[in-house]
Amino acid sequence: MDETWLTTLITDTPQQGFELAITLSRRGVKYTQPDPEVLHKLRPIYANNPDSLTAASQVVAINFQTVAAANNYWRK
Amino acid sequence: MDETWLTTLITDTPQQGFELAITLSRRGVKYTQPDPEVLHKLRPIYANNPDSLTAASQVVAINFQTVAAANNYWRK
Amino acid sequence: MDETWLTTLITDTPQQGFELAITLSRRGVKYTQPDPEVLHKLRPIYANNPDSLTAASQVVAINFQTVAAANNYWRK
Amino acid sequence: MDETWLTTLITDTPQQGFELAITLSRRGVKYTQPDPEVLHKLRPIYANNPDSLTAASQVVAINFQTVAAANNYWRK
Amino acid sequence: MDETWLTTLITDTPQQGFELAITLSRRGVKYTQPDPEVLHKLRPIYANNPDSLTAASQVVAINFQTVAAANNYWRK
Amino acid sequence: MDETWLTTLITDTPQQGFELAITLSRRGVKYTQPDPEVLHKLRPIYANNPDSLTAASQVVAINFQTVAAANNYWRK
Repeated sequence: MDETWLTTLITDTPQQGFELAITLSRRGVKYTQPDPEVLHKLRPIYANNPDSLTAASQVVAINFQTVAAANNYWRK
Repeated sequence: MDETWLTTLITDTPQQGFELAITLSRRGVKYTQPDPEVLHKLRPIYANNPDSLTAASQVVAINFQTVAAANNYWRK
Repeated sequence: MDETWLTTLITDTPQQGFELAITLSRRGVKYTQPDPEVLHKLRPIYANNPDSLTAASQVVAINFQTVAAANNYWRK
Repeated sequence: MDETWLTTLITDTPQQGFELAITLSRRGVKYTQPDPEVLHKLRPIYANNPDSLTAASQVVAINFQTVAAANNYWRK
Repeated sequence: MDETWLTTLITDTPQQGFELAITLSRRGVKYTQPDPEVLHKLRPIYANNPDSLTAASQVVAINFQTVAAANNYWRK
Repeated sequence: MDETWLTTLITDTPQQGFELAITLSRRGVKYTQPDPEVLHKLRPIYANNPDSLTAASQVVAINFQTVAAANNYWRK
């Protein structure tokens, strides 16, 4: 991928960190399936399957561990 | 998502931390499937499937690792 | 949940820590399916399925990581 | 469980630590299904299923992370 | 494998670290299935299955935890 | 198992560490299914199933986290 999409793991707030975790999770998918049309077609399938949604949330949770550690958990 | 829902990972007690882990797990789902009616319709499906419940508990466990570390495990 | 069920992650022994990890894993299920009758009905299903048992053991392992770190691994 | 089976996470060697990780993984199963006869009956099912074996190895890997950290990775 | 393919976990940027995590995930597959023709044949199967894509993204997330820690999260 | 197969987690290079992670993953399987003939028979099944390959890569990733931490990420 030539595009620059990730320059830092540091965010201002935990919520921005959680949203970065979502970005990382989606990018992990995109490196395997780069075609946006295919991804668009697959979305309604897993977005209506509870086990697929739990699995998606799990990837976000794993990436959020990384982002949260990078930000020292946004401790004041 | 424009709504602010996560301003800190710090909680007073481990139980509140566990409940925050549940919130994070549900938000991870909501970013993929934001429609509350769909989520409501899916609930009875996975809430009666033992493997789905174990999978849900696993996501909570992963998020609880993050929240517990953020709170230095609520050590006195 | 109004009930207080988790006031500390600190335990005297690793075995008590492992048992706390089991409690955390069950609570993760209970927040999704709070009805004890449903949970009771589901138990024989997954308790006789080897893959379900492995999955349950995995959630315990993840929660045990958290409890063990909280207790500094019960190092003397 | 009244029996004492886990008094320390410290082992002399990494291999003993890996074997402790296996014990922890099996105990995680046993708390859900304590009947040794049922466990014995289930064994040939998952011991001949490659995905079940990979899943079992994954639980061991997670528990080994905990044991290895407890032992400071057996660094000299 | 005789080929040298991994000499360091250190990367200049988080994005390069993420791409290294993808490499590690693919190498984990390749050690089990080294035949490039088989891998090529399998690709369209999982690249069009949403649950397979989520599972692939999860392995990347786990490897990214390792690479990010190695790089001290690219903190300035 | 009486055989000594793991005396240290320390390796010279990250690639050797990755290969040790593969050894750990296979040993995790072998403790559950020690019969080499059965393992040999199962191999073509999961080596041609993309989801099985992803699952195998995930166990390697988890074990690599342990080995990499043990080696302080091979930082110079």
